[in-house]
Amino acid sequence: MDPTATATKISPNVGITLKVKRAILSRETPYQKLDILDTYDYGRVLLLDGLIMLTERDEFVYHEMITHVALVTHPNPKRVLIIGGGDGGTVREVLKHPNVEKIELVEIDTEVVQSCLEYLPEVSHGLKDPKVQVLIEDGIKFIESRQDMYDVVIIDSTDPIGPAEGLFETKFYTNVFHVLRGEGIMVTQSESPFQDPKLWIRIYQNLSSVFPKIYSYLAYIPTYPSGLWSFTISSKVHHPVDDMRAEYAQKLSSMTRYYNPEIHKSAFSLPNFLKMELDHIA
Amino acid sequence: MDPTATATKISPNVGITLKVKRAILSRETPYQKLDILDTYDYGRVLLLDGLIMLTERDEFVYHEMITHVALVTHPNPKRVLIIGGGDGGTVREVLKHPNVEKIELVEIDTEVVQSCLEYLPEVSHGLKDPKVQVLIEDGIKFIESRQDMYDVVIIDSTDPIGPAEGLFETKFYTNVFHVLRGEGIMVTQSESPFQDPKLWIRIYQNLSSVFPKIYSYLAYIPTYPSGLWSFTISSKVHHPVDDMRAEYAQKLSSMTRYYNPEIHKSAFSLPNFLKMELDHIA
Repeated sequence: MDPTATATKISPNVGITLKVKRAILSRETPYQKLDILDTYDYGRVLLLDGLIMLTERDEFVYHEMITHVALVTHPNPKRVLIIGGGDGGTVREVLKHPNVEKIELVEIDTEVVQSCLEYLPEVSHGLKDPKVQVLIEDGIKFIESRQDMYDVVIIDSTDPIGPAEGLFETKFYTNVFHVLRGEGIMVTQSESPFQDPKLWIRIYQNLSSVFPKIYSYLAYIPTYPSGLWSFTISSKVHHPVDDMRAEYAQKLSSMTRYYNPEIHKSAFSLPNFLKMELDHIA
Repeated sequence: MDPTATATKISPNVGITLKVKRAILSRETPYQKLDILDTYDYGRVLLLDGLIMLTERDEFVYHEMITHVALVTHPNPKRVLIIGGGDGGTVREVLKHPNVEKIELVEIDTEVVQSCLEYLPEVSHGLKDPKVQVLIEDGIKFIESRQDMYDVVIIDSTDPIGPAEGLFETKFYTNVFHVLRGEGIMVTQSESPFQDPKLWIRIYQNLSSVFPKIYSYLAYIPTYPSGLWSFTISSKVHHPVDDMRAEYAQKLSSMTRYYNPEIHKSAFSLPNFLKMELDHIA
């Protein structure tokens, strides 16, 4: 790899390297360092504090999987709240559900939104849809003052260091519980259970102390640490496999590149080494 | 990442970097360059021609998944042939099946076997089992002269460059077909369908011209290119999901860290972008 390559650290001892065509943007926002690079194999890449947030080549996996499992499980999601996700990829996927009437996106860093609108239009274009309201606020404070409003809440956060730390804590999850309607479902990205099983378990435990039903599921995201990524659904009522709307899922998958009804179900099959981690806390 | 790190190329433009404690072995065999390194996060690592073949931390995924799906599908596997796999990881997994009476392993490079016996004992120890016969030969020639002998044939090869190239061709697959008994099953590692979908499709097509039933399945292997890895089962009679011995799979999973009956089934669910690749050739 030559000096025009960029390396991003997965841990102090593991890294991934992508060869860069050119740097598009590099700036310090009030919250984080923001870079957009153009790479040979993965297209444009958004980095926050030196960590890969998305690449044009594999972002579809993350954004489809954080969105569709919850929205296909809920019987009739009309109002959706996204915390984080300023790049707009999750909004783009939520907009594939015609029943959804209103999407609020609460992003703390306006420069993430602006930069993605300018340099990652394929990801961000949904942010300009009339159904979408972008609010530049702290998501933690935003939900404190609200109650019984949303069918689905999606936590599309960075890692639990810096501004996103509070988005992984019990207090925040309690507020999400109260902001959800009766059949409400929350989904959060829950990090790599291969790279950091303790963190995955901590998220699961924090959620378990608030919600009656917790289910973790997996997807392959090549440019995320270890490639094995998890999401966790917390539900008041519905089971993400037993209650999935199978026919609707099939229709939806004419618009997806990763998600389909079989993937929806299979994603909940955990390898033994992860089942064992969950057994320890059961 | 400091200069004691080792970088391995996934493509000319993508790499993975593991920080190294020390080099254990580095030599040129008649077939390839062989290195064993000790790393901080992934334990000992075997590299052939600079590419990661296995790491102590994640080799269980590859070895369990190349082995158990086929051996749980076959109703009564007694005789197993492994082509390649000189590290012994696949042998270790096949030995978990008590019905298996004899395992022949045909590895072209004796130095792979010797080095793994010496420096990777947790992976290779099965090679010393009395049920196992290690033959240092070219696997392509080995099966040419045999017929109707094996219940399961496992192709545990390196990438299709250099000595392993012939292990991905129709002529070889035809010989495997003939070396299998009536209910016989072949399984091969079939590369990363994310990193190189054309190669994955070529393997699938070559197999389809020989076997009546072909099924590709997936597993997460963090240190392999893109992390999304595939295996392909070619069968004369049996369907790997419909005919899996579920109760037996459940028992087996007391000895596995990745494989279990749900994973066996789920692994065959392909994301849309891969289903579309297969639809193009159907």
